[in-house]
Amino acid sequence: MRQFAFIVFFLASAVSAQTTRPDSSVVSPDVQPDGRVIFRVYAPKASSVGVAGDFLKVNTTQPMTRDDNGVWSVTVGPLAPTGYIYWFAVDGMNIADPVNPRVKLRWRTSASVVEVPSASGEGNPWDVRDVPHGRVEINWQQSKVLGEARAIYVYTPPGYDADPGARYPVTYLFHGSNDTAAGWSQVGHANFILDNLIAAKKAVPMIVVMTYGHTVPYTAPRDQQARNNATFERYVVEDVVPVIDKTYRTLPARESRAVVGLSMGGGHALQIGLAHLDLFASVGAFSSATPATFQQRATADASEFNQKLNLLWISCGRDDPAFARWERLHQAMDDAHVRHTFRATPGAHTYGVWRQNLAELAPLLFRQRTK
Amino acid sequence: MRQFAFIVFFLASAVSAQTTRPDSSVVSPDVQPDGRVIFRVYAPKASSVGVAGDFLKVNTTQPMTRDDNGVWSVTVGPLAPTGYIYWFAVDGMNIADPVNPRVKLRWRTSASVVEVPSASGEGNPWDVRDVPHGRVEINWQQSKVLGEARAIYVYTPPGYDADPGARYPVTYLFHGSNDTAAGWSQVGHANFILDNLIAAKKAVPMIVVMTYGHTVPYTAPRDQQARNNATFERYVVEDVVPVIDKTYRTLPARESRAVVGLSMGGGHALQIGLAHLDLFASVGAFSSATPATFQQRATADASEFNQKLNLLWISCGRDDPAFARWERLHQAMDDAHVRHTFRATPGAHTYGVWRQNLAELAPLLFRQRTK
Repeated sequence: MRQFAFIVFFLASAVSAQTTRPDSSVVSPDVQPDGRVIFRVYAPKASSVGVAGDFLKVNTTQPMTRDDNGVWSVTVGPLAPTGYIYWFAVDGMNIADPVNPRVKLRWRTSASVVEVPSASGEGNPWDVRDVPHGRVEINWQQSKVLGEARAIYVYTPPGYDADPGARYPVTYLFHGSNDTAAGWSQVGHANFILDNLIAAKKAVPMIVVMTYGHTVPYTAPRDQQARNNATFERYVVEDVVPVIDKTYRTLPARESRAVVGLSMGGGHALQIGLAHLDLFASVGAFSSATPATFQQRATADASEFNQKLNLLWISCGRDDPAFARWERLHQAMDDAHVRHTFRATPGAHTYGVWRQNLAELAPLLFRQRTK
Repeated sequence: MRQFAFIVFFLASAVSAQTTRPDSSVVSPDVQPDGRVIFRVYAPKASSVGVAGDFLKVNTTQPMTRDDNGVWSVTVGPLAPTGYIYWFAVDGMNIADPVNPRVKLRWRTSASVVEVPSASGEGNPWDVRDVPHGRVEINWQQSKVLGEARAIYVYTPPGYDADPGARYPVTYLFHGSNDTAAGWSQVGHANFILDNLIAAKKAVPMIVVMTYGHTVPYTAPRDQQARNNATFERYVVEDVVPVIDKTYRTLPARESRAVVGLSMGGGHALQIGLAHLDLFASVGAFSSATPATFQQRATADASEFNQKLNLLWISCGRDDPAFARWERLHQAMDDAHVRHTFRATPGAHTYGVWRQNLAELAPLLFRQRTK
C-alpha cells in the first residue's frame, strides 16, 4: 500500500487571507469588570467616528479617537448590568460593529449588542444562569393571510418534553418597529427571563410565541405601511393562534392566553387583545404605540374590560419620549375606572427597560390557571 | 365618564428620528428578476467604496459609484440562483450592509446574505417551498467540558410531533471557521434542503444537530486556537451526543449517526467521525480541512474504514484553494483502497457549494435504516 502525505491545513485559504488584515486584531466590545465598555473600530481613512447606542441620549453620539493604526476607540460607562444596542457613526454612515457577532437584526441602521454582566452573586433575571433552559424553536409556517412562509419563534419551558400530558398557557410576545421575530430572544433574553423565573417558581411554566411584526416590508412606502397593523392582526388571529394550538400542547382558552408587546408591538397587543377578548384575557403593553381603536373601546364602557380582562398591564420608561403621553393615558384610564396596572420604569426606549418589564409582568400571568 | 383623547402614535419617536436620515430610503440588496443584484450603500464622505462577496474571486472587490446623494451602487450578475454572502469595503473598512437584516454572524468581517431565487417552476433544493417545514430548535445546554451554556441548533423533521413513538437518525452538521451555530440554517438553508428532500421522499426523515464549532474564542491567540479541535471533539462526544440522545427521539446507534461538516467543520467531522467509529457510521466533509490524525488513520489499514463506514463522502469546489489538495487525497485514498465518494463541485469556498453538497449527500444517508 502506497504511503501518502496528508497536509495539515486547518484554516481555509479564503479565511486566512482575511485574518491578516489590520482589523483582525481589533477587540470590540471590550467589557470591563466594572461595567465600563471599550468600543473599537478600524476605520483608517475616516475623519469622524463615534459610537451611538441606547445607553446614550437619542440622536447623540460619543466621539471616538484614532490611534496610529487607524483604530478608533472610546470608553463608556460604567453601565448598569443589562444588554444594550449600539452602532458606529463613521463619516455620516451608521454601521454595526464589524467584529461583534451579536447583531440586532434590523432593516435600518444595523446594530450590535453588548451584554454587561451582573456582578457575581447578584444576578438579574435576564442573565444566562445555570438553571434548566427552555428551547427557542423556529417554526416556518405557511401563512394563508400573507401567502408566504414566516418564521415563528416559540419558547417552550424546561420540562416540556418530560410530561407529554401537560398543557401550558401561552404568551404572544411582539417586538417593535424595525426589529424581527428574533429580537425578543436574541436581544430581549425573553427565554432566559422565563427560565430564571420558572426555576425560582416565580412564574408559571408557559409557552411564549414571538412572531414577526412587519407584514408589510419595513421599506415599503408609508401608505402601504398603514396597512401593517390590520394585516398583522389578521395574521395573528387567523394563522398564528390556530397553528400554535395545533402544534404545541397549549391550554387553548382565553384565560390561558396573554398578548404582550413593546413599542409598535405594544400597539399590536392592545389592538389585538382588546378586539379579541374571546381569545385573550391578559394584555401587556411596554413603551407602547396607541392604536386608534383603543380610544373608542376604552371610552365606551369600562365594565367589559374590567369583567373580561384578568390583567391589563402597561409600562413606560421614565425617559421615553412617550412617557408623558402614557402618564396622561393612565390617569384617563383611572378616571374612566378601567382597571389596569401602570408601571413607570427607569430608563428610555430600550430593551433594558423591556427586559425589566417582562421580568415584572411574567410572574403575574396565568395565576388563575386551574390545570 | 370623562372623554379623553388617545393620540395615534404608531412609530416610536426614537425610530422615527432615524427614518428621516438620508439612508432611510436606500434599498439593498435589490435582486432583479434576471438574477442581477444591485448593491447600494450610503457613504457620503467616503472616497472609495466597493462590494466584496463570494460571487467574486477571493480578495477582490467590485468598485461602486457614487450618486449626488452620497449613495454608492453597483450591479453584479446575473448570479446563479442560490445564497451569497457579501460585504462592503468602505475606505479600507469591511462592513455588513447596514440596511439588510439578513446577516451572517461572524467574528471577523460581518457579512450580509443575499438570496437569488430560482426562476419560477424550476426550483432548487434550498428554496423555501410550500412543503411541510421542520423546526429549527435552539437548545441552550450547559456543557461540562466547556463550563458554560451553549446554543445547539437542532432541526426536527416535519411530522416529528405526530408519532410520539417514532425515532430518527441524526446528522451532526458542523460549520466552518468564523461562523456560528446559526450558519447552516440561516445561510446554508439546511432546514429547507431537508424539508424539500423529505417532502419529495428523496431523503429519510432525520434530525440535524448544528453546534458551535469555536470552543476557544475566535479572537484568542493562535497557540490557544490550536486547542480548539481537541476541545470541540470532547464537547461533541461527551456533551452533545449524550444530550441529544436524551432530549430527542433518536435512534441511538452508530448506523443511525452521521457526522458532516464544511471547511474547519469538515476537519472536525473527519477527526471525530474516524476517531469514534463506535458512534458514527457515516462521515461527510465539504471543502474540508484535514486533521492531523486523518493521515495516520488512513495510511494504517483501509479495512477498518471499509468495514465500519457505511459512507465516507468528500467534496470540494473546483475553484476552492483546497481543490488540488483534495484531488490528490482522493487519488491517494483510491490507491490505498479506502472506499469513499469524491465529488468535484462547480464553485469556490462558498455556502452555494455546501448547499449543493448537502442536497447531494442527505439522500444517501441512513439507507440501511431498519426501523
